[in-house]
Parts: sequence; C-alpha cells; structure tokens
Amino acid sequence: DSNLKVFTLNSNRDLAQEIVEKIGVPMGKSTVTRFSDGEVQINIEESIRGCDVYVIQSTSDPVNEHLMELLIMIDALKRASAKTVNIVMPYYGYARQDRKARAREPITAKLVANILETAGATRVISLDLHASQIQGFFDIPVDQLLGVPILSDYFSKKNFEDLVIVSPDHGGVTRARKMADRLNVPIAIIDKRRPKPNVAEVMNIVGHVEGKTCILIDDIIDTAGTITLAASALIESGAKEVYACCTHPVLSGPAIERIENSKIKELVVTNTIPLAEEKMIGKITQLSVAPLIGEAIIRVHEKLSVSKLFD
Amino acid sequence: DSNLKVFTLNSNRDLAQEIVEKIGVPMGKSTVTRFSDGEVQINIEESIRGCDVYVIQSTSDPVNEHLMELLIMIDALKRASAKTVNIVMPYYGYARQDRKARAREPITAKLVANILETAGATRVISLDLHASQIQGFFDIPVDQLLGVPILSDYFSKKNFEDLVIVSPDHGGVTRARKMADRLNVPIAIIDKRRPKPNVAEVMNIVGHVEGKTCILIDDIIDTAGTITLAASALIESGAKEVYACCTHPVLSGPAIERIENSKIKELVVTNTIPLAEEKMIGKITQLSVAPLIGEAIIRVHEKLSVSKLFD
Ligand SMILES: Nc1ncnc2c1ncn2[C@@H]1O[C@H](COP(=O)(O)O)[C@@H](O)[C@H]1O
Ligand SMILES: Nc1ncnc2c1ncn2[C@@H]1O[C@H](COP(=O)(O)O)[C@@H](O)[C@H]1O
Repeated sequence: DSNLKVFTLNSNRDLAQEIVEKIGVPMGKSTVTRFSDGEVQINIEESIRGCDVYVIQSTSDPVNEHLMELLIMIDALKRASAKTVNIVMPYYGYARQDRKARAREPITAKLVANILETAGATRVISLDLHASQIQGFFDIPVDQLLGVPILSDYFSKKNFEDLVIVSPDHGGVTRARKMADRLNVPIAIIDKRRPKPNVAEVMNIVGHVEGKTCILIDDIIDTAGTITLAASALIESGAKEVYACCTHPVLSGPAIERIENSKIKELVVTNTIPLAEEKMIGKITQLSVAPLIGEAIIRVHEKLSVSKLFD
Repeated sequence: DSNLKVFTLNSNRDLAQEIVEKIGVPMGKSTVTRFSDGEVQINIEESIRGCDVYVIQSTSDPVNEHLMELLIMIDALKRASAKTVNIVMPYYGYARQDRKARAREPITAKLVANILETAGATRVISLDLHASQIQGFFDIPVDQLLGVPILSDYFSKKNFEDLVIVSPDHGGVTRARKMADRLNVPIAIIDKRRPKPNVAEVMNIVGHVEGKTCILIDDIIDTAGTITLAASALIESGAKEVYACCTHPVLSGPAIERIENSKIKELVVTNTIPLAEEKMIGKITQLSVAPLIGEAIIRVHEKLSVSKLFD
C-alpha cells in the first residue's frame, strides 16, 4: 500500500529497519541532523501528500533531543500534507512524572501529550505506558501494546518447574498477574514498607518462593535498585534462582554494575530502548518488539482493532 | 511588590541574578536538575499562588534541553496557580526556521510558539527576534526589546570620526539604519550576489567605506562566516578599520577561530547568550541586557508600555 509511509528518527534506527522489513515497505527517506549550533534540522526527501505516515521514535535518553526531533518531524509532516501522522513511541519518556506527588510539581507526561497533539499527531502507538492513565492525557487515539506476551513466550520455552512470577512492588501486581496467567503459575509480591520515617525499609514477601524459580517483572528498569534488592530478598527467602524481565531497559547510572553484581541470573528486556554497546552484558537478553509493532501498524492501517493482538 | 516573582532556569543564571538585583526582588527559589536517566526534574520551592511570575531562559545551545526546562517550568507554575506566566527569553532559539524555504521543511519557530502557549505561557519578552513576524506566531502578547540602543551607546562613546554602519546582507538593512540614526552617520550594505548557480558569490559594497571606520551589525552571529567575509570585503574596499556587533553571540563551530583570524578589530555582543570561558577572547566585548530586561519587567508588571523604552 503506497499510502502507508514509515519514517524513523534517531532513537531506534535498528528497530525501525526491522519494522519496515516486517511490514514490507521501504524506509521513508529523510535526514535528521543538527545545525552547527545544535538546532535540529530535518529534511523529508519524498512526497507524503495524502499519506498515512508512521514515525518511529522512543523518547529515551537523551529524552529532550528525541522529543524535539519528534515534534519537529510531526510539524514538517503536517505542513507537507500528510493525511494522518501516527506516532510510534515504543518507550514514552517522562511517563513517571504522571501526577503531582508533591506540591508544585509539573505533570510532564501530560505536557508531552499536549505538545505532541499541538504539533499535529493524530494517533499514538506505545508499549507499556508506566500508567495506563496516560492514554487519557490525549484527546487522540492511543494504542497501548504490551511486552508481557513477548517476555512470557521467551520464558515459557525454558520449561521451568515450580515457577513463580514476582512483582517487585505493589504497583506492578497486575502486570505480574498477566504474566502468571500466560504461564499458568502463581504470583508473589515484594511488600516493602517503612515502619517509621527515616528507618530502613523492610522487605517482606507475600507468597511462596522457597525452592522455586522466580521471575521478577517490571515495566521499566532504570537504576536497577528496586529489582536487584528484590532479587536479594528472594534468594534470602530461599528462592532457588531469580530471573528478571522488563519491557523498557532504561538502565541508567549504576544499573549495569548493580545487575552484574546481583543475584539475577538473567535479565530479559525488549528493544523499545536500544542498548548501548557497554550495556550489552552477558546476563542481558534483548527481545525484539518489531513483529508486534509491525503487526500493530498493519492493523491500524487496515482499520482493525489492535487489542485483538493480545487475545 | 511581593506579587512579582522572578525564576531562572539553567541558560542564563548570571544574567538572571543581575536582573533580580536591578528589580530589587529576591531570586525565586527553585532547583532544576536531571534524574539519573536525563529527564528534567524541577522543584519550585516557594508558593507562587496568585503571583505574576517571570521565568528567565534563553533557548540557546543546548537548545532542546533549555526549551524542555522552560516548558516543564511553565507547566509546574501553571499547576501551582500562578496568575500569569511571563517568559523572558533573551534569545529565541529556532528563530531562523521561520518559514518553509524548501518543500517539506518544518517551521520550528512556529512550533516553539505553539508549544509555549500550550504549556501555559501568558506573555513573552524577547530581544531581537530574527524575524519580527515571530510575534505573530503567538496569540499572547510578545514584547520585542532591541539590542541596537545598547550597542549604539557603547560605540558612541568611542567618538569615531567618519563612521559608517554596515549591514552584512540585505536582510539586515533596517537594523543598520536604526543604528545609523542613533549615531547620526550613513549606512552601507554588503550586496552579495551569485552570478550563476555553483559560481562563487560576488561581494559588492553599496555605499562609501573608503578611509572610514565601519561597524558591521547583525542580529545573530553563528558560525561567523558572513561577518568575517564582510570585514575582509570592507578592508579590501579601503575601509580604515572594521568593528562588528550583534545582539546574540551564538558563536558555534568555527566562529571563534574565524573571528580571531579576521580583520575585525573588536566584536561587541550582549549577554542574551552567555559566553563559555573558551569564547571569551580579547577581541570580544560583552554588554549586559540586564538593565533593559529589568526595566521591561517592571514596566510590564506596572502595566506600562514597553515600547516606550526605545523612545
Ligand atoms: N526520570 C525519573 N527518574 C526517577 N524518578 C522519576 C523520574 N521521573 C519521575 N520520577 C519520580 O518517580 C515517582 C513516580 O514513580 P512511580 O511511583 O514508579 O510511578 C515520582 O515521585 C516522580 O517524581
Ligand atoms: N540553527 C540554524 N543554523 C543555520 N542555519 C539555519 C538554522 N536554522 C535555520 N537555518 C536556515 O537558515 C535559513 C534562514 O536564515 P535567514 O535567511 O538568515 O533567515 C533557512 O534556510 C534555514 O533552513
């Protein structure tokens, strides 16, 4: 279908290449560079008049650069008469700033939604929004894809005996439940609690982990503090071995060192955020979301339901 | 007036300090840092409920970082019930992307205007917008201050004999005329023209420069190609000496080297963009716009006309 065009910016060039191959369209011709003073310069090098355009860009680190590239690309596409401008944002940056946790905080996740719409986005496709409420920050359609099926399929091939899926905190129980359903195993929860202010947190485990293989699941692993402490707590409680997985490998600051030195046997992530060379350590396995996103783009373009992808 | 609050972000901390001292208010308490993964974290550390808030931030290099800091600050101020959110942007980045020069180009200067309004800005104060039309990109009031009076005052103290103000291109003639009026001297124009495509430009000078002191004036000096070539052309045409000035010293890439090696005797700039240590060479003089901006903030706050500043 020559009305379907896919462009990529700078965050996920390899993933984007995989996606166009999966869909069977050529990569849209464009260059995204910088002027001498650091301003973003975008050239779209083919006509997109009347087309349904998909732009692939995660707002991963450097988030502000990636976001501005995306906004400027949307502006250019809109002015070049694209019929629809569909943003494929495998990782939605600033998602954790989704509410006022303290006085006078910004709600940057909502700001990002507003400015994407102002720029001219007509649809957003993303994976595992940190809070599903972010869909409601937009007045345009938002399709949320899930990493759980991809992660579950990988682990199901390992045929573990006596498996339990563990949520590293209260916020992630629903996600752990989804994975446990797919693998037909029970869940456990790391139940952190601070007995008094300024006293160390106590890690209590709700559920049975003794002698079992545990898989910790989270949406984002950033500095890896939560997940590596959770792994230690599981081993201390008699777990046989601990795996971990997440959709979005942010892995900033001390993350890689912590994972290397942790009780985690293998960390399984997806490529919503590409891993820099120095983060590709032996313990980390990266699975591709290209088939999932490719399928989602085809379904959106054919006006079919995307949620059917998870049946 | 305790209803007037001034905050600064990271682009121009020294200028902001000068401005609050000029106005006679304390600097608004806030911190602007980064989370481990590079996302902007802003904390506003005093109540601004019902206040007229002024935020000082140039969108200079790194432009995308500075712009996102500004947008997130506006969002936080708006949600913290500021009465008005006035953006003081001494330098307006992306101003040169103000029209579609070629097919399928973005108009990023308009995008920036739109997203500032979407975030919640209620007024913009800036200096020497690259194109005055940028005022029309906004649906909120925009006050444009001018660098010409500051630059002219500096040169008038030198009591040059036989002075001429030179515009380095056709686009800058009005600015040169303004400066010439203040100094009561004539103007000249560097009249570049390309006889055929892919043939070197010819530099012709319109006006009399022989034996005269020339002051080149531009709004932005970026890579300094235009201004240093203009200086050479003036010397070749018999000018006695060449000074140069501009409001916004972007000075990216080869700029400093070019200026060092050029015929320019002294380059006079303002501090709408702070100069990094390595750019503070002997040939460059930096004048402060703090008194001008301070006065503008006071006038806006007292509901007086800002254009009166230029009478
Ligand atoms: N990029 C970030 N890195 C670390 N913490 C963040 C980031 N963005 C927001 N937060 C904080 O994370 C908390 C929300 O995380 P959560 O409770 O997991 O939803 C809030 O207190 C935010 O201020
Ligand atoms: N940051 C930048 N650095 C250099 N050139 C730019 C920049 N932004 C826009 N331009 C180009 O500068 C030209 C406009 O400059 P001007 O003719 O001086 O208004 C257009 O062709 C733009 O594509």
